[in-house]
Order: sequence, then C-alpha cells, then structure tokens
Amino acid sequence: MNTFTLSTFLTSHIEIEADFVETLMAQCKSLKVDKGSYLLKPGEICQHSFYVEQGLLRYYSIDEKGKEHILQFASEGWFVSDRESVYFHQPSHYFIQALENSRIILFNEDFITGLAQENKSFLEFNNKLLHNHIRHLQNRINQLLSASAEDRYLHFIKIYPDLLLRIPQSMVASYLGITPESLSRVRKDLATKNFKK
Amino acid sequence: MNTFTLSTFLTSHIEIEADFVETLMAQCKSLKVDKGSYLLKPGEICQHSFYVEQGLLRYYSIDEKGKEHILQFASEGWFVSDRESVYFHQPSHYFIQALENSRIILFNEDFITGLAQENKSFLEFNNKLLHNHIRHLQNRINQLLSASAEDRYLHFIKIYPDLLLRIPQSMVASYLGITPESLSRVRKDLATKNFKK
Repeated sequence: MNTFTLSTFLTSHIEIEADFVETLMAQCKSLKVDKGSYLLKPGEICQHSFYVEQGLLRYYSIDEKGKEHILQFASEGWFVSDRESVYFHQPSHYFIQALENSRIILFNEDFITGLAQENKSFLEFNNKLLHNHIRHLQNRINQLLSASAEDRYLHFIKIYPDLLLRIPQSMVASYLGITPESLSRVRKDLATKNFKK
Repeated sequence: MNTFTLSTFLTSHIEIEADFVETLMAQCKSLKVDKGSYLLKPGEICQHSFYVEQGLLRYYSIDEKGKEHILQFASEGWFVSDRESVYFHQPSHYFIQALENSRIILFNEDFITGLAQENKSFLEFNNKLLHNHIRHLQNRINQLLSASAEDRYLHFIKIYPDLLLRIPQSMVASYLGITPESLSRVRKDLATKNFKK
C-alpha cells in the first residue's frame, strides 16, 4: 500500500470533509514521468505545484559555467514548484527533473486559490504549505551562511533520510554547496569520529 | 512627506476600499524604537510582522562561535518577521534589531488571518507578500550556491540601493556570507574595472 497518495496526505493534514477531498482529487491531474524527463525548464512559465506520490524529483539551476546547483529534492510526500514563476507568471530560471520513474499529482495554482477562497480549512492548509516552504528556505539560508559542511551534511541526512541510497554523492554535494571532494572528507571524518566512540 | 506610511503602501498595492484601510490602521500598533534596541531575541516567540515606516532593521542569527549572520535588512517600505516562529508558535532562533531610530507598524498574525478570510483583496495581498518572501529567499539560496562574491555584491546593491551609506561594510559582508577582507577585494576590483571602461 502506498501511504503517500495525495488523498491520504490531505486527510492527515487538514480537517476536511471526505467529499471535498473527492472534489479536489477529481480536479487534479495525475502524471507518470520517466526517469530523466523534465517537468520544467528555464524560460517556461511554471503552471503547477507538483506533489510526489511515488518517485523522486530534483529542482535545480545551471550557472553560467554549466555547473548544477540543486535547490530541493522532492521524494514521496513532498511538494515542489517554482512558486515565483507560478505566482508572478514569470519565466522560470530552474529545472524540475525526475530522478526516478515517478507518479506526480499536478496542482493548478488558480484552482488552489479558488479553493482557498471557498473553504476555510483549505485556506489554512495552503497557508501552512507556504509557511513550511518559507521555514525550509530560511533554514537553508541560515545554514549556508553559518553552518560547517559537516553540520550541513548531518542536517541533509535528517530532512532527507531516504535519499542517501537513491542519489549519487555528487548531487548531495551540489545541494550542500560544496565540492564532491569536500563531501568525501566530511564523510570520512564522521566515520572516523563515530568509530572511535 | 513620508511616502512609506503603511496606508500609502496598502492603497498602492491592493485594490481596497478606503474604509477598510482605516479599519486596518486602527487595529495596527505603531511603535518608535531606538537604535540598537531589539524587537525579537532568540527563545522568544515572534508575535508580529514588522513594517518599517521609517528607519532600518536587521534580521540575523549568531552562530556557536559568536559570529553574526544577517538574513535580511528592512528599511522603509519593507516587512520583516520570523514567519516560522509567528506561524508555528515556536521559539525563534533569530534577532530583529533596529540599526537606526525607527518607526514600525506591528501586524498581528491572527488579525491578518482573520482579515484574509473576510476580504478577498486582502487575502490576495497577503498571498502576494508570502510569495514575494519566497521569491527573495529562493533567489538568495541560488545566489549563495552559485554566484561569485562580486555578483552577490552587485545584487545586494540592486535590492538595497539605499543601504550602502547607512550600514558598515562588515554588515554587508555578513549578509553576503563573505569576510570583510573579501568584500574589500571585490569593491577594489569593481572600481578598477569600471575606471578602465
């Protein structure tokens, strides 16, 4: 049984009537995407928030030198979107790509706004999602400014416990903003420390 | 004349009836704060969003080694708040401090949520504020991951054009996540480049 279906997610996060969830689900499009394919590319206007029922996505940019920088991973139970592009109808600077064969639910922004105006529980749910997003982004900035590579890696393991066996180390390093060589050192140091305990 | 009063800000950002603005203003508390004083300290639960009518605030953390990391400045026309602490009623990890004698409007979160449920224009306004916040945070992360110190400095000047003469260089460096020495080099290189043009 998959515990990450959107309807399970909704009923466990909002006090909401079953028929409202049904209405919502009937309006949302489900999509199967193959590993390596893109849900968003730079220059496109992002039309949706993507909820991951199964699989794994990454949200990233490529700089002028061709280097990738991963802003977010989204595995089962996560949302990902370029909210700036969706909300302000501006071309995105980012990619959203499937790292595994995935099953995704597409949330249309206008539909969400409409629901939030109609249903108080859903307004609160949407507000909570936005504030959760802000919380993650703010913690990330504070970490990038102040935390050591080791602390950042430990935090990564905490928020993405299931990812270490699903993605290459180079992507972990890209997310942490360090080189793969630095990440190897961090991992070696941690193993030595823990072995001595 | 001060063009940054909250009522001017609201009427220029929302299609809203004058009497609604009056009701709102009557409910918001105005506060004069002296340079150096604090609106928030770590361990406290942040109760408000702060709108700057006059003056300058900074939002920052102090790491285990006692080093300051500035997440945001807020001069006239800006909002600042620990939204995580306000929304989730959790003790803050951050400071909000006045860098100049300032005049601040305090927004109570419950009051805002109530208004958003009553008034569609205000719901849209609040949504826009949240998305603007997300946009700033996301750009900041992408910059910290991918941009050179020089590009980060140029971006800083663009979003805070009025601040360079109001804060010490050490605070600019703290915001950029570089040492004051690196910032001096960046400024010197830029001056040399521009002089040669």
